[in-house]
Amino acid sequence: MTMAHDTDRTPMTAADLEAALRKIGAERYHSLHPFHKKLHGGQCTLDQVRAWALNRYCYQSIIPQKDAALMARCEDRALRREWLHRITDHDGLDGGEGGIDRWLMLTDGLGFDRAYVMSKRGALPATRFATEAYLHFVRDRSLLEAVASSLTELFAPQLHEERISGMLGHYDFINERVIAYFRRRLDQAPRDATFALDYVLKNARTVDEQQAALGALTFKTEVLWAQLDALWLAYVDPAMPAPGAWRPGEGMAVTREAAE
Amino acid sequence: MTMAHDTDRTPMTAADLEAALRKIGAERYHSLHPFHKKLHGGQCTLDQVRAWALNRYCYQSIIPQKDAALMARCEDRALRREWLHRITDHDGLDGGEGGIDRWLMLTDGLGFDRAYVMSKRGALPATRFATEAYLHFVRDRSLLEAVASSLTELFAPQLHEERISGMLGHYDFINERVIAYFRRRLDQAPRDATFALDYVLKNARTVDEQQAALGALTFKTEVLWAQLDALWLAYVDPAMPAPGAWRPGEGMAVTREAAE
Repeated sequence: MTMAHDTDRTPMTAADLEAALRKIGAERYHSLHPFHKKLHGGQCTLDQVRAWALNRYCYQSIIPQKDAALMARCEDRALRREWLHRITDHDGLDGGEGGIDRWLMLTDGLGFDRAYVMSKRGALPATRFATEAYLHFVRDRSLLEAVASSLTELFAPQLHEERISGMLGHYDFINERVIAYFRRRLDQAPRDATFALDYVLKNARTVDEQQAALGALTFKTEVLWAQLDALWLAYVDPAMPAPGAWRPGEGMAVTREAAE
Repeated sequence: MTMAHDTDRTPMTAADLEAALRKIGAERYHSLHPFHKKLHGGQCTLDQVRAWALNRYCYQSIIPQKDAALMARCEDRALRREWLHRITDHDGLDGGEGGIDRWLMLTDGLGFDRAYVMSKRGALPATRFATEAYLHFVRDRSLLEAVASSLTELFAPQLHEERISGMLGHYDFINERVIAYFRRRLDQAPRDATFALDYVLKNARTVDEQQAALGALTFKTEVLWAQLDALWLAYVDPAMPAPGAWRPGEGMAVTREAAE
């Protein structure tokens, strides 16, 4: 929400608009957040990784809702047909596995009880507020802004590459099964991002539309950044989780080994 | 969002429900947050007080919107007539001064440019997400939950008393003029809280309604707490404001003295 407004009112070329969108990623994407450096560098405790996965579930779970909110307001059948696979990617098709199932394989692997994770009871309030802000944004703003807010996917593959190699290399509790979500996103995200970028470059033609698209992408980087800020305050430094939020030891599955 | 559900399905008496509501305040109201202890105890720097006032403007500014959202869904004319004065308290009536004007007298006194404050450009994204969550909650949930979410006012007068004496006593940049907002709320909040409490005690009769009312008040304490968490992370410890958020020195008014 800090975009400077163009004063000369001349729209950018598509190439300049793309460069301006990529600049937002270079300056504000959450790959720059200290929590990610810590997570991928092997400096997180098991409980910090748990807190991250537990909270990030809120974000994963809201993605198909925000995509449905976008489709609900979209009169263009071609756009709806293209957008639909985002929902099936996350929810699964015909009972098949989707991204949310793969995220739950990660929280399983970290020892959580699934019902606890899915209830979101232990999530930080700030996580819920940020992720719900994304849903409301897509529901309430223009279709162009809704599409533009998905463009953080342009920057995701490099982050996921770092995450996969960093987490597999550094943590003995991470294996291929629990990071299946990220492997799969390496293929899915670029296809989605290319489509959405083309849409924005074609449809953001006036200065106001271009500023709205840049503002939407900025907003989305704030949604992602705020989630890591909340984790940092609650579980890293000064480690003061909000009243009622997850404390280490809560929400764990009773495993067969532990029960024996 | 962490309310345990009653298992025996017997509704509480009104007295027990009131006690349960007050217990949420005793355990979760933001008077308990370390930022308030620091603020009222005179341990904040001028820039930390500025960050607090700048961010809290987002909350103040959204109050009349959330009250209008409540009235917009309310078929009961008597409730609308009672609720209306909350809007005029904040927005002012017939061009008269309201709570938002008094908040801007506080930010004026701290040296801010009004247009900068009112643009919310320098506010932390987490502050915007939390305050907008309150607006969306009141718009989307039941009328009972919307009313119950206002019940943090039951706990406000004591906090405002502490704030007035603490800030006047400890900071040479605070005087009666800049804390006019809090003096006025000492009279306004108890009247509102008494009405809303009576409404909730009369209308929350089933176990589900009572749990919804308790959940709504818990949610509201989370909205308030999350704002102080965000301030703490950004401006106290470890002092890492989100990209684009206010940095000391930004958004100040050019005063006559400074210009001379």
